[in-house]
Amino acid sequence: MNNIDRRNFIRKTSLAGAALAVSPAMAQVGFDSTERPFGSKYMGDFAAPKLTKIKAAFIGVGARGPEHMKFFASLPGTEVVAICDLYQDLTQKWTQEAKDIGNGIRHKNIVQYHGDENQWKTMLKEVKPDVVFIATNWKNHAPMAIEAMKKGAHAFVEVPIAITLEDMWEIVNTSEQTQKHCMMMENVNYSRDELMFLNMCRQGVIGEFLHAEASYIHELRFQMEEQERGTGSWRTHHYANRNGNLYPTHGLGPVAQYMNLARSEDTFDSLVSFSTQALGRKLYAEKNYPTDHKWNKLDYKGGDLNTSIIKTHLGRTVMVQWDETSPRPYSRLNLIQGTKGVLAGFPTRIALEGGVEGITENHHSWVQGEQLAAIYEKYDHPLYKRLNQATKNSGHGGMDGMMMYRIVECLQKGLPLDQNVYEGCLWSAVSPLSELSVASNGSPQQFPDFTRGNWKDTKPLAIIT
Amino acid sequence: MNNIDRRNFIRKTSLAGAALAVSPAMAQVGFDSTERPFGSKYMGDFAAPKLTKIKAAFIGVGARGPEHMKFFASLPGTEVVAICDLYQDLTQKWTQEAKDIGNGIRHKNIVQYHGDENQWKTMLKEVKPDVVFIATNWKNHAPMAIEAMKKGAHAFVEVPIAITLEDMWEIVNTSEQTQKHCMMMENVNYSRDELMFLNMCRQGVIGEFLHAEASYIHELRFQMEEQERGTGSWRTHHYANRNGNLYPTHGLGPVAQYMNLARSEDTFDSLVSFSTQALGRKLYAEKNYPTDHKWNKLDYKGGDLNTSIIKTHLGRTVMVQWDETSPRPYSRLNLIQGTKGVLAGFPTRIALEGGVEGITENHHSWVQGEQLAAIYEKYDHPLYKRLNQATKNSGHGGMDGMMMYRIVECLQKGLPLDQNVYEGCLWSAVSPLSELSVASNGSPQQFPDFTRGNWKDTKPLAIIT
Ligand SMILES: NC(=O)c1ccc[n+]([C@@H]2O[C@H](COP(=O)([O-])OP(=O)(O)OC[C@H]3O[C@@H](n4cnc5c(N)ncnc54)[C@H](O)[C@@H]3O)[C@@H](O)[C@H]2O)c1
Ligand SMILES: NC(=O)c1ccc[n+]([C@@H]2O[C@H](COP(=O)([O-])OP(=O)(O)OC[C@H]3O[C@@H](n4cnc5c(N)ncnc54)[C@H](O)[C@@H]3O)[C@@H](O)[C@H]2O)c1
Repeated sequence: MNNIDRRNFIRKTSLAGAALAVSPAMAQVGFDSTERPFGSKYMGDFAAPKLTKIKAAFIGVGARGPEHMKFFASLPGTEVVAICDLYQDLTQKWTQEAKDIGNGIRHKNIVQYHGDENQWKTMLKEVKPDVVFIATNWKNHAPMAIEAMKKGAHAFVEVPIAITLEDMWEIVNTSEQTQKHCMMMENVNYSRDELMFLNMCRQGVIGEFLHAEASYIHELRFQMEEQERGTGSWRTHHYANRNGNLYPTHGLGPVAQYMNLARSEDTFDSLVSFSTQALGRKLYAEKNYPTDHKWNKLDYKGGDLNTSIIKTHLGRTVMVQWDETSPRPYSRLNLIQGTKGVLAGFPTRIALEGGVEGITENHHSWVQGEQLAAIYEKYDHPLYKRLNQATKNSGHGGMDGMMMYRIVECLQKGLPLDQNVYEGCLWSAVSPLSELSVASNGSPQQFPDFTRGNWKDTKPLAIIT
Repeated sequence: MNNIDRRNFIRKTSLAGAALAVSPAMAQVGFDSTERPFGSKYMGDFAAPKLTKIKAAFIGVGARGPEHMKFFASLPGTEVVAICDLYQDLTQKWTQEAKDIGNGIRHKNIVQYHGDENQWKTMLKEVKPDVVFIATNWKNHAPMAIEAMKKGAHAFVEVPIAITLEDMWEIVNTSEQTQKHCMMMENVNYSRDELMFLNMCRQGVIGEFLHAEASYIHELRFQMEEQERGTGSWRTHHYANRNGNLYPTHGLGPVAQYMNLARSEDTFDSLVSFSTQALGRKLYAEKNYPTDHKWNKLDYKGGDLNTSIIKTHLGRTVMVQWDETSPRPYSRLNLIQGTKGVLAGFPTRIALEGGVEGITENHHSWVQGEQLAAIYEKYDHPLYKRLNQATKNSGHGGMDGMMMYRIVECLQKGLPLDQNVYEGCLWSAVSPLSELSVASNGSPQQFPDFTRGNWKDTKPLAIIT
């Protein structure tokens, strides 16, 4: 064996060892203590070489993918090079849209891939994009992101980053081995209130952190209407067959960044979880579909509402909930409590010891509604102030555009991304861990340390100006 | 041995067996399957013989006891016969107050007991009251209630009913053996919103129950100012030395009755619990007291906020929180979620599938504030409508008086009380069980079934008219 062969050999066997180590059981008895495979590098503060012009491919242009594509294509220094979906009508429609956005100047040579489940692999080989945006069904996130990195592209993946701990480890290992970004695109971290709360937390407004609350309470039973194609066609099977918190990251991502979880200050330790009975989807199917309809043949096993409590390394707690089934108003809770006060969402409310800026005299009442104007004035995040005008017409009240703007900006300037691969994995790990806890009557589950101890040296997310 | 001796002998040995069985470990491996001791009787729907005139003794007239005494004394068919406290100035003050209320006609012969920790025992022997109201420090609740029942009185105990599972079992066993009531006086169950939600739940407004939330979030650090006498003098030591949810019943009592827990429909199964770090009281002591002050010598071990999740027999969940330390506005959460909608508190909010009574069109927004007028009009509880005028000037916005009115009414008419001994114990059991769970890194803890299976045959609380 020459030197290069030996290095490859060692790397391959180390990876095989690592792959062995990723069964859930071992993840829980401390995979974090295992050595990082030879040749791999920690990616916590990773900055890739500058990409002045970003060539992007898109896999999955159903409901979500086009949002990413459109805002990406509208930014300078970008090129859409390929669009892939199972369905040709979709690739055609969104290729045309990209061309329209490019005004005959950019996005002129888009290759379309469609027709079968493996076209994305051909695309990665043929097109060699710099980055790949993945907005497909959940099971495809991990294999697509992993293969994209292996083919030399940075991967940007919709939420959750993956649905098993094994897949998360493989994403981490591949990113570390290939030195490619794998960012889960948690757009809620770019929402105005969430950015402002981050800013306030960094300024010490609420003192030392004690507790947070995060949820995705969003009644989406109507998605079951999509029966052959579209999100309802595959999500409904997850809801029927898995019991836990299947969609934790919208609420959790922001509070994890307030608390600097997995970034120098603190990290995830363990979790307990209980689900309610599974009633809502069965009732909905019975009411809305004929007796022999496919939605009336499922055995709904996933509890309507899941409640979990995460314990952090420093002994802080995060209460996380998920419910896409019950008739309730939307909420992400978005609560962060410290020794000096509490910031909360839905509706936005603030209470601080000693009162809030001359509005209240103590912490016994909330500052909310119109009273908050002075707070936004003082604490709006610099990023929000800079990008609000440019992004406000993008999806979800502007946060989708702000996220894409930042992705493009960081890639072009060669900066670390705002969310690293470990954060995507830790936030998403609540799903498989809550499933394990629910299945074992609430037994605590240990989070794997995807950073292998390196979270201690990882910088807090900078307050980007 | 004659017959009576034999019966006593069997009873005593059975009780000794029962006493053995009440260690926490055994409680968890299923004490509920143990047979009820010979001669004892299940007390779930117990109604005592009518008491046309109720002779009451009061133990503990600090901050809370006098509220009970005053409203009791103002009702017809009552007599205050004794007042006991450690401090003579208190027994004197409240004896005079009772006499004033009695207008020289009633409450004329009140015996005062004070001076040492055991005067209440002498009082029970000498005065032989029909009922005893206990509003002392927590550790004294159980021994005082048990001895009161043994001396032939019904016991009415402040919250929590007791602080150890052993004491709860002994309360249950003594009540069953003596056929005396032991009611924990959870006044929040008589609050207007809580009564209305109970009424709405019974009418099926929110469908089948899925989940509830209950808390006691009430910043009470100022109580530490009471250093030698008063609630701060003894509570502060609990907060410093015990880690869990030390005061669960104000939030939990009402939602447990919405859900008919321990009453025919469902019951408590198990619990998981995590606390945050213990920071707030130490900071408060450092800020407000000299370095050598007694509050600066405590090692504060009880986490500032505790979050627990209860799983019920039918698989429903209850999220329970407690925080008397952090600077936050008051809340009991008071949320009950079913398949058709959700009722919530702080502020009062309602959302129902299909909309609320012509105010909203669907469940995506809350009905709250002035919009609720029509809801109160339609769903206010009959008990609230009947007693609001008579009780509204009593403590805690009227609920204290309503509770006392009902206690007196039920005793005089020989009706079952609104809260049975098992409910008091199950609601209070969240404290020791959360302490066990916190101490074992969130491990699930089984609730003892204080009813020994009889909850299945216990009537739901009637909608009292
Ligand atoms: N962050 C947000 O706010 C947000 C909002 C909606 C959806 N999402 C996420 O976006 C993702 C997509 O959701 P959606 O609602 O767009 O679902 P969707 O079903 O509408 O779209 C997914 C698309 O992927 C395509 N696809 C599936 N397998 C493929 C394959 N092998 N090759 C090529 N294309 C394939 C499908 O044909 C479909 O068009 C999910 O992960 C979802 O969780 C995120
Ligand atoms: N339900 C509610 O809304 C509510 C409100 C406040 C307090 N409480 C409960 O009421 C109880 C009392 O609280 P508090 O704030 O009045 O406390 P407190 O300390 O002000 O009063 C307790 C009184 O009991 C007396 N006492 C203690 N040991 C005694 C003994 N051996 N013999 C005779 N008297 C004795 C003390 O001298 C004191 O006056 C507690 O259980 C508390 O949790 C309930």
